[in-house]
Amino acid sequence: MPDPLSQSTPLGVGLIGLGTVGGGVAQMLTEHAGLYAKRCGRRIELRRVVVRNVDKAKKSGLVDPGIVGDDVSALRGDDVDVVIEVAGGVDTAKGYVEQALSAGKHVVTANKALLAAHGPALFKLARLKGVSIAFEASCGGGIPCVTALQFGLMSNAVRGLYGILNGTCNYILTEMTQKGRTYAEALADAKAKGYAEADETLDVSGADAAQKLAILASLAFGVSLTGDDVPCEGIDTLDLTDVTFGDELGYDVKLIAAAEDDGRGGLFLSTRPCFVPKDAQLAQVHGAFNALSVVGDAVGHVMLYGAGAGRGPTASAVVSDLLNVASGWYPKAFADMGLMPDLHEPATPQPTDDAQSRFYLRLSVRDVPGGFGRITTILGEHGISLSAALQHEATHTGDDFVPVVITTHRCRQGDLHAACAMIANLDAVSGPPVVLRILDAT
Amino acid sequence: MPDPLSQSTPLGVGLIGLGTVGGGVAQMLTEHAGLYAKRCGRRIELRRVVVRNVDKAKKSGLVDPGIVGDDVSALRGDDVDVVIEVAGGVDTAKGYVEQALSAGKHVVTANKALLAAHGPALFKLARLKGVSIAFEASCGGGIPCVTALQFGLMSNAVRGLYGILNGTCNYILTEMTQKGRTYAEALADAKAKGYAEADETLDVSGADAAQKLAILASLAFGVSLTGDDVPCEGIDTLDLTDVTFGDELGYDVKLIAAAEDDGRGGLFLSTRPCFVPKDAQLAQVHGAFNALSVVGDAVGHVMLYGAGAGRGPTASAVVSDLLNVASGWYPKAFADMGLMPDLHEPATPQPTDDAQSRFYLRLSVRDVPGGFGRITTILGEHGISLSAALQHEATHTGDDFVPVVITTHRCRQGDLHAACAMIANLDAVSGPPVVLRILDAT
Repeated sequence: MPDPLSQSTPLGVGLIGLGTVGGGVAQMLTEHAGLYAKRCGRRIELRRVVVRNVDKAKKSGLVDPGIVGDDVSALRGDDVDVVIEVAGGVDTAKGYVEQALSAGKHVVTANKALLAAHGPALFKLARLKGVSIAFEASCGGGIPCVTALQFGLMSNAVRGLYGILNGTCNYILTEMTQKGRTYAEALADAKAKGYAEADETLDVSGADAAQKLAILASLAFGVSLTGDDVPCEGIDTLDLTDVTFGDELGYDVKLIAAAEDDGRGGLFLSTRPCFVPKDAQLAQVHGAFNALSVVGDAVGHVMLYGAGAGRGPTASAVVSDLLNVASGWYPKAFADMGLMPDLHEPATPQPTDDAQSRFYLRLSVRDVPGGFGRITTILGEHGISLSAALQHEATHTGDDFVPVVITTHRCRQGDLHAACAMIANLDAVSGPPVVLRILDAT
Repeated sequence: MPDPLSQSTPLGVGLIGLGTVGGGVAQMLTEHAGLYAKRCGRRIELRRVVVRNVDKAKKSGLVDPGIVGDDVSALRGDDVDVVIEVAGGVDTAKGYVEQALSAGKHVVTANKALLAAHGPALFKLARLKGVSIAFEASCGGGIPCVTALQFGLMSNAVRGLYGILNGTCNYILTEMTQKGRTYAEALADAKAKGYAEADETLDVSGADAAQKLAILASLAFGVSLTGDDVPCEGIDTLDLTDVTFGDELGYDVKLIAAAEDDGRGGLFLSTRPCFVPKDAQLAQVHGAFNALSVVGDAVGHVMLYGAGAGRGPTASAVVSDLLNVASGWYPKAFADMGLMPDLHEPATPQPTDDAQSRFYLRLSVRDVPGGFGRITTILGEHGISLSAALQHEATHTGDDFVPVVITTHRCRQGDLHAACAMIANLDAVSGPPVVLRILDAT
């Protein structure tokens, strides 16, 4: 058989950023040059590397020092066919990606913040210029969840997406669940081990997971939306008491980014801590790992699991995208399939108060006759029935209030909130109840 | 925006088989016609249905009776662009697929037995005729594992594949593990519930899982192989005693189809019951569900989970393939990427005796002084060290032999077999030890 590559033109690559992920990309392109040429039908050549700190990159040993510079306009030349953006940030990266697309370069990016904020506009520009944007690495690190939604599961009308999409949160929650640490203790540990940034806000607030959900929901439901469309509740107010009660009831707590078909063309969107039954697939996702559960009308429940961040996994997704662009099929899919968010109507997020679910409530109830009865009466008046209730014997004499935990059957969230507002006003109850969603069948 | 579909040519589809899967395909094409036209850029029209029982198909209500016939040559006409083969069987299906490819039709098939036996020849024929074969449904039902290996994970040098690829076996093993049923009891239950065929041989022998593994390993490792290259050990000789001991030691038993890089260009292939630590992802796969764990050099461990069979899940994969063919990108990927088995050198399966792993041994040992010592001495002489040992007090007086269970650290399988042959000859031991592989980190 003649060498199928001999007559092909090598693909020229420009790389913006040579940090953790960029370094991993450069290393893979060097180590697997032969393998990649065989798999995608042409050679891949890294021709330009653009970084802020040129000296450091030249001395890294990762790339030929002769191709390193700090001027992004170097990527506009004819020797570059694809630009990989792994520098991060939103505004600067937006400029880089716009320049690359305008110069007719395909773009591969791992930048979820950029796509969640400006995805539709960038996709539109790419389409206008006849090039493509590949973005597997923007969600779930090395997990091929974008590929699965775009291609492998595309025959399904998706009913729901349920993702554990932030490794920092999942590490903290796993420490709280398995070792009984408080949120503050687990966060300090995550920072010490490098799983959390110095400023953890973007992660623990749920905003990072919301950005990834916006990208995935856009593909799954054929709508256009941004991270701002996803109401967020973080893990930073989570009390170890609730983790412990959940454990006793058979649930683990996970930060779940959820997008659910409301059955009438709208979506329920949320990112918040939820209780997941211990025997559910998502409950088995521990530490810094990520997972995405997809519920499709034909396929039922599918879950994809893997490392959601880090050098190797993220570079795996970036380079897989690059090879799919190099072989020419991805640009064709990008151009011809109606999957990309620039082709979609804006999503119509529905108030989560209209969503139905099971819930967990924890209340501080005065240990007096009739207290519990008044609570269940109010719930009943709102059409909410109890699934289970749990009250431990008071351990300290003189405690005025004892914790009472209730799980409900499926009910409308708005009805539960209305009931909770009334319950919070009871003399026998101290403060508003803690409310957590219980997620079944994922 | 003008309707992007108005100028496109609809895609004509011919369907061979209108059973469980074929019926599901027909139903999806009807229900989601608008969605599919939007997603893949053109309308999909089911134009011919070929079945053995024409009357039954005409009365099914699933398709227009006017397009049903029993002559497969009807699919050669210009009105058919893609042939979907979901009739099953090997020899007949091979003829159908060859005819379709020869007539210049793309083929979508769910037929793992066909591809495991004749894949490379059929892929070669497709390439010759300028058409493609899509086969997501052939492995793992609705789980997008073929798409993941072909595209989403393609930057990785794959180190290992570990699959739970037969739902019948996993249902039986789950019943044995969770309910303490014997193999015979669990099999009878699986038959009663429709999870097992009247003749269960193909499933419980491991042959079905081996066929799927051959297809997946071909993609992952860039080699050509058939199901016959995979040594099989079934679940039909599995003793409940070992399931129970495994449970006590923290393991669940699963039928694992494994392909592992030997580090020197060869592959270790096997399908056999293995112990999996209870906290491993694969141990969480219960009942008739399937899963595939992929270990890649960059991505680390990724797992894909879902329903491995049944109408909806299998039709999900078939129709996703169809849409990917319809949009034109899959045929381009098929033509231009070096992923398909007809382009690969034959695999070089290595003797599993050369593979390293941990193992579980169960021996019947006479309850006399020194018996256990002689066993550990023989293991030590073969370079095998013990990880754990377990001997219960004899429950019945007068028992001559008591079960002794040993788990080993990593050792060469051939060394273990040699040691076991010597151990079986000891006066203090009755019969050859039961040996099961222990699979870590999946």
